[in-house]
Amino acid sequence: MTELAISLDLHSKTPLYEQIYDYIREEIRRRQILPGERLPSSRALSSYLQVSRSTVELAYEQLVSEGYLESVPYRGYFVCEMEELYHIEGMESAEQTFQEEKKPEWRWDFAVSGIAPGGFPYNAWKKISREVLNDASPELFQLGDPQGEPGLREAIANYLHLARGVNCSLSQIIVGAGNDYLLMLLSVLFGEKKKIAMENPTYRSAFCCFESLGHEICPVPMDEAGMDRKALEASGAQIAYVMPAHQFPVGTVMPVKRRLSLLAWAAREEGRYLLEDDYDSEFRYKGKPIPALQGFDSAQRVIYLGTFSRAIAPSIRVSYMVLPESLMPVYRSKGKNFSATVSRTDQKILEVFMRDGYFERHLNRMRALYKTKHDLLLRQLRAFQDICTVSGEHAGVHVLLKLTNGLSAEQAARLAAEAGVKVYRLKDYYIEETGGKDDTVMIGYASMPEEEIPEACEVLLNAWKDAV
Amino acid sequence: MTELAISLDLHSKTPLYEQIYDYIREEIRRRQILPGERLPSSRALSSYLQVSRSTVELAYEQLVSEGYLESVPYRGYFVCEMEELYHIEGMESAEQTFQEEKKPEWRWDFAVSGIAPGGFPYNAWKKISREVLNDASPELFQLGDPQGEPGLREAIANYLHLARGVNCSLSQIIVGAGNDYLLMLLSVLFGEKKKIAMENPTYRSAFCCFESLGHEICPVPMDEAGMDRKALEASGAQIAYVMPAHQFPVGTVMPVKRRLSLLAWAAREEGRYLLEDDYDSEFRYKGKPIPALQGFDSAQRVIYLGTFSRAIAPSIRVSYMVLPESLMPVYRSKGKNFSATVSRTDQKILEVFMRDGYFERHLNRMRALYKTKHDLLLRQLRAFQDICTVSGEHAGVHVLLKLTNGLSAEQAARLAAEAGVKVYRLKDYYIEETGGKDDTVMIGYASMPEEEIPEACEVLLNAWKDAV
Repeated sequence: MTELAISLDLHSKTPLYEQIYDYIREEIRRRQILPGERLPSSRALSSYLQVSRSTVELAYEQLVSEGYLESVPYRGYFVCEMEELYHIEGMESAEQTFQEEKKPEWRWDFAVSGIAPGGFPYNAWKKISREVLNDASPELFQLGDPQGEPGLREAIANYLHLARGVNCSLSQIIVGAGNDYLLMLLSVLFGEKKKIAMENPTYRSAFCCFESLGHEICPVPMDEAGMDRKALEASGAQIAYVMPAHQFPVGTVMPVKRRLSLLAWAAREEGRYLLEDDYDSEFRYKGKPIPALQGFDSAQRVIYLGTFSRAIAPSIRVSYMVLPESLMPVYRSKGKNFSATVSRTDQKILEVFMRDGYFERHLNRMRALYKTKHDLLLRQLRAFQDICTVSGEHAGVHVLLKLTNGLSAEQAARLAAEAGVKVYRLKDYYIEETGGKDDTVMIGYASMPEEEIPEACEVLLNAWKDAV
Repeated sequence: MTELAISLDLHSKTPLYEQIYDYIREEIRRRQILPGERLPSSRALSSYLQVSRSTVELAYEQLVSEGYLESVPYRGYFVCEMEELYHIEGMESAEQTFQEEKKPEWRWDFAVSGIAPGGFPYNAWKKISREVLNDASPELFQLGDPQGEPGLREAIANYLHLARGVNCSLSQIIVGAGNDYLLMLLSVLFGEKKKIAMENPTYRSAFCCFESLGHEICPVPMDEAGMDRKALEASGAQIAYVMPAHQFPVGTVMPVKRRLSLLAWAAREEGRYLLEDDYDSEFRYKGKPIPALQGFDSAQRVIYLGTFSRAIAPSIRVSYMVLPESLMPVYRSKGKNFSATVSRTDQKILEVFMRDGYFERHLNRMRALYKTKHDLLLRQLRAFQDICTVSGEHAGVHVLLKLTNGLSAEQAARLAAEAGVKVYRLKDYYIEETGGKDDTVMIGYASMPEEEIPEACEVLLNAWKDAV
């Protein structure tokens, strides 16, 4: 019988049974008590330690539950055989060596994405959150519909119909936690690696996701109307990822003719799809929004992707896709196995936000805000006319500057950086080397405060104007 | 030159330019104006329609943006060539034929998952939500860390260390929108289809996800200590999915000996992992919680999965995994490409909830609430002693009833259903036919109101007692 030299601390916050449990477990782990050994009876140990017998029994039972001891009727408690007992790491304090990644210090960052400071609709969101939680039925906290709540899908369907010309029923909409997640889900539906055509340059984040998912990427050049149909045909791709309303980063609006041409490409062979990323169609400062490609699709070949990242905030992580009817059977058999990825409360808040007109007012406010910044930026850029030409304006939240003074974009970005200004090279959005000139930088204004635009532009102008 | 018989409605809410745009676009789509035709000059049309010239120009520019018209300098506006113009579907009203799925009418549902009605911590959540939104910096609405916010990961690491004996640094924790999403992400990290061993019976939802992801499932029988090591070895699996603290649905606690044996299995070959799903370890009503397997893992072979679905609510969609160091390089190269899937505001709320002690108090409250129901249920089940034996008690939110009166589980479930009570057959959780008897039903009490347990049990007893 094993001797147990336990010294109990009667003043500790740790219950007595737990002190006994801890001691014995450590002894077993450190092989001070060996497999097969018998422990003192609970009666003996309790009298030795001067604690109640039930205290000792509780410790023993816990050790039995965890498999350190076994209880043999009429004989007592024995240490279990653990032939493969190798070093068990002690439960050292978790090393919490978190280091915040140091961001370089920029005085101004002309980031090409993000949202305006103060752009989040705080007040409406707070008000609706409170109402939703006040009115919540217990049902709201159970697991919801894998596709997203019907109420939110209805609000999205209405919005898509009116604002984007998208035709769909609720059953085709899938709400998900961001575009990247939806691309992952789509890969599950495809079931195999695909050849995916992407415009070159394109949205890098989608490119990286497709690559990580193991798909083969076919970079396809663009002309002034968008993805080149002949090159697409030649690539052998099955899926074409396009941004018809406002190509990122170039800003091309795909004309109807090219749209129809791509739709015809997709309809020509079984398993071909157009993946339409309609990421920022809300922001167009001249005329009406450009309708979605999906509305032209009579052959059920367009997978439509939309997001609230630009329209509300990237931090809320809500996107949605509209599957063509041709993909619904596979979604129902495979996709429904994956639970929803957006909090049901958040879905309810967003539903009310859209349904009760907050979203429309918010979009109008943001469009006005971005238009003001856009116009101000363009006015400042008039002073750059000997240095560069501007394109991609009147939509989105960035413009392209093609340098005409002999500076390369690399040099321009470096000179800007030396002056504390971050600008972006178009070259970085190419997914394949084209041999084209590195002569274009991108500057965004979503997250740049309006009042800082003039000074940031002046600093940029000074950095560039005498450089060559 | 085309004649345009536009009739403008001066009292419409639709702006005049948009009425002109709509009319011309429809004429082009319906081939009333053909490719190559020239439109009236903006001067001519504006004088004909008696609107300002800029109104007509705005309409023409929109049609140019969308590719219906092209503008030829000094000559005017022409309809574009669209050789592949096939039927463009009109933008009919989206068919919103949503029908709520009819749930069968149960008087009582002994569901084996879900949470208690009123179990969600409304007040704390509302209070913290308000504070988080009031104190929010603009940064909180930009895109966050793909792994999850450092603050939340720190709160999780502390909780895991203290409550679950899990050893990890912040950099190993990945926050995601539910377990299913994390299994998807894990599949991306694996990069290829794997052979995954699962206990039989097991958690069906994980099984369906693995299947949809294309992995090969190897069902492995269980003995009283959990997954059978020899059968695991023979299966050729590379990954073993286990629930050591409380196996679902059987309730087995995996003893230390079996844990070490499985760890040794994993350490024996490159690429082997134990996937530990620690889904409801919080709810144990006797002794201390059973520590996680991860804390025993010195070979970096355990992938730990945890969730707030049971501990807070399935509707909030927050889970996390702890990757072993051996998987971190692949996560950094592939996994980081996928943006976070949980709203940054929600992450902040959860961080405060955990950090400021609300979570601990909530768990204590829920544990007490479930224990009360558990004890009440077990008292009611004493009357069933001639009908069945009870197992899987003292933890989780369900128990198993093995019928001893000759009824099959199928018969028992049908008799219960006829009396308006939903119970679950253990057989439905088997992923492979074992030839075992269909003699066990499962009854859960999480979402069943306490005051209804006695009557529901009585109805069940009456349905079963004289059945044979």
